[in-house]
Amino acid sequence: MRKTKNFSDLDSVHAKQLQVLNFVREKDNCTRTEIAEALDIDKKTVSTLVRDLSNKLLIESAGYKDSQVGRRQEILRLNGAHSNFIGIDLGATHVIGILVNLRGEVVDRVYFEIRPQLPVKLILEQMKTVCQTLIKSQRATAEIPSIGLCVPGFVNPDTGISVIAENIPGWRDVRIREIFEQEQGKPVYVEDCSRAAGFAERWLGEGKQAKDFLTLDLGYGIGMSLFLNRELYTGSGYKAGEIGHSVVKLDGTECTCGKRGCLETVASGRGIARQAASGIAEKRSELLERLTHGKCETVTAHDVAIAASMNDEYSVALLREAGRYIGAATANAVNLLDPQLLILGGGLVNAGSILIDSIKESLKQYTMMGIAEDIEIRVSKLGVDSSALGIALIAMDRIFCP
Amino acid sequence: MRKTKNFSDLDSVHAKQLQVLNFVREKDNCTRTEIAEALDIDKKTVSTLVRDLSNKLLIESAGYKDSQVGRRQEILRLNGAHSNFIGIDLGATHVIGILVNLRGEVVDRVYFEIRPQLPVKLILEQMKTVCQTLIKSQRATAEIPSIGLCVPGFVNPDTGISVIAENIPGWRDVRIREIFEQEQGKPVYVEDCSRAAGFAERWLGEGKQAKDFLTLDLGYGIGMSLFLNRELYTGSGYKAGEIGHSVVKLDGTECTCGKRGCLETVASGRGIARQAASGIAEKRSELLERLTHGKCETVTAHDVAIAASMNDEYSVALLREAGRYIGAATANAVNLLDPQLLILGGGLVNAGSILIDSIKESLKQYTMMGIAEDIEIRVSKLGVDSSALGIALIAMDRIFCP
Repeated sequence: MRKTKNFSDLDSVHAKQLQVLNFVREKDNCTRTEIAEALDIDKKTVSTLVRDLSNKLLIESAGYKDSQVGRRQEILRLNGAHSNFIGIDLGATHVIGILVNLRGEVVDRVYFEIRPQLPVKLILEQMKTVCQTLIKSQRATAEIPSIGLCVPGFVNPDTGISVIAENIPGWRDVRIREIFEQEQGKPVYVEDCSRAAGFAERWLGEGKQAKDFLTLDLGYGIGMSLFLNRELYTGSGYKAGEIGHSVVKLDGTECTCGKRGCLETVASGRGIARQAASGIAEKRSELLERLTHGKCETVTAHDVAIAASMNDEYSVALLREAGRYIGAATANAVNLLDPQLLILGGGLVNAGSILIDSIKESLKQYTMMGIAEDIEIRVSKLGVDSSALGIALIAMDRIFCP
Repeated sequence: MRKTKNFSDLDSVHAKQLQVLNFVREKDNCTRTEIAEALDIDKKTVSTLVRDLSNKLLIESAGYKDSQVGRRQEILRLNGAHSNFIGIDLGATHVIGILVNLRGEVVDRVYFEIRPQLPVKLILEQMKTVCQTLIKSQRATAEIPSIGLCVPGFVNPDTGISVIAENIPGWRDVRIREIFEQEQGKPVYVEDCSRAAGFAERWLGEGKQAKDFLTLDLGYGIGMSLFLNRELYTGSGYKAGEIGHSVVKLDGTECTCGKRGCLETVASGRGIARQAASGIAEKRSELLERLTHGKCETVTAHDVAIAASMNDEYSVALLREAGRYIGAATANAVNLLDPQLLILGGGLVNAGSILIDSIKESLKQYTMMGIAEDIEIRVSKLGVDSSALGIALIAMDRIFCP
């Protein structure tokens, strides 16, 4: 039989086939026998369904497994060659684009550093360039049926509008889906960066097995994604997850959001940099001053992490204090939601063990007894690409939930 | 046809009947035409289903409504006379028992004040007395198929064990379901008090229409219930909702939970009383001193509310500060969960407008722009019985979800 792949024909993947497809996605490597048992479908029907999905290039063989009884069994998995998807992550300091196959494996990647103060129009141009580069990628292994874009701040996936990104000046009501759909003529999916990162953890990272888990996205800003009862929870207006704007100091510094004392003012990449700039101006760290050649306004959280790794006392204290506040705000979220797993992710995780250890210590201190014992804390292994990866997975989601 | 009511026969209410029953419960007063339209079932089938449910005494007529076209239409509602349910709420300072009918209407009520330091055995005796009084109530309008018990702290509805209630000394791993099932020979359902109160709001209070809402239970302790995507969210270990143990002062007073600076230390009934006792000892409020006849250790949040209503400056400031912390901790929960509605409930709500206004002001101050505009804040109208009412509704839930 001819193997066919027709994207306009996705609805023809009927309910039973979808059940098998989603089981293979969830389990990754599995046999027909496992599918039959888990889904309570007789083996003959499973074989037919597997053949259909295989003909549609949605699943493939990943070799054979020896069986104690009877003949060896074929191992099935998603077929990466079915299609490729673009995921583009706009951060306050970067644009990352990746091209992944149906298995979520990265086949190509583009990275641009941007300055936080860039005009909106230029940022959009950068994103378009990244998208175009991936569309034309020589490394693509299949057609690209859809594109995902994630941006920080408030995003409405229904309207495709990026409502506001406090960390990008002037970024308001950008009709980002419309812009990219017109440019590319393909369906475009949009989401918030932290939620996209959570989606990547859900399918390819630490969150695969958990019913309730939270991912903390520690970057230039701080966000959280919430997976409750195995589903991404977005809130009544797609604004859930704003832990970065938790009040941690009732009369603290003014935040980009207009409030005072938010977690982001003391513990985000931006907040750490702002404090470090003051520290340099006040001559509290010779090393930071040298690293930034005295231009204190150019200092970044990355510089602080480097200085801390060289035992600069001021930088170590700054990261410890940031970790303490992150831990306390996160403990409040944990006390409220009683998740089984917390995943620490985002660029700041690379600041190293001083920050991570301080977060863990503070979490332990401020999480309630009875809840603290049950929660597992893991550091993301997905690195800086997690949001781009997640939004690519969101773009491919209609394959699995048409 | 004979009207029958058989509790062992609840499974005989088949899927379509249940759909209609639940629609009638959700809508309260509705007509056959509305049912047919909403559930996409033809009118003749609806009539049969309504007759069946009516024969089982589950729904009844609530009169007629004039129709512009055709004949007047019968209004349907749940039949209160189907069954009665007991709900018992153990608080740190009271045991409240209520008897409700299937419509959630209170048919009898028992109230006991208890001292917070009472031994566990005596508290259980009090609860048993309340239960027995309601079992024998002359006001009962129907059989009592099941009983609900709610207790503060960590409760596991699966095992029926009340794990810990920090505000009741010595209360640990009380097999509360087993104790009452043995005593009464009826199914017993247990839940946490704050979640029970939320359940009452969901069905009989302010939360009937909302997809995502939070209820704040301000009492001797402080708890929160979370209704997300129309469902009660309990967390991975039934411990969700511990907003009372949010850290609001990083180096604050020690809390009953063992941590420092929890919201409860400054803003719960217990926390307010503790601060008032210090205030009296430090001669900061003549009025409070008079109200408590100088026995500062007996002062309650209720005394503070009275003094505040008489313009006692110290008491006003105490309630304002409590409201400020409650608002800040709740704003953090709102920023995290983006609910459309927040309901303020619990005994402290009776402390009056000084506290409520301060909570609202602080919520406005600390909730993020873009989220603050979308959330509605309401004060519960269910009063001190809300938890008892909610746990009675939980006990009746198997009628609707067998």
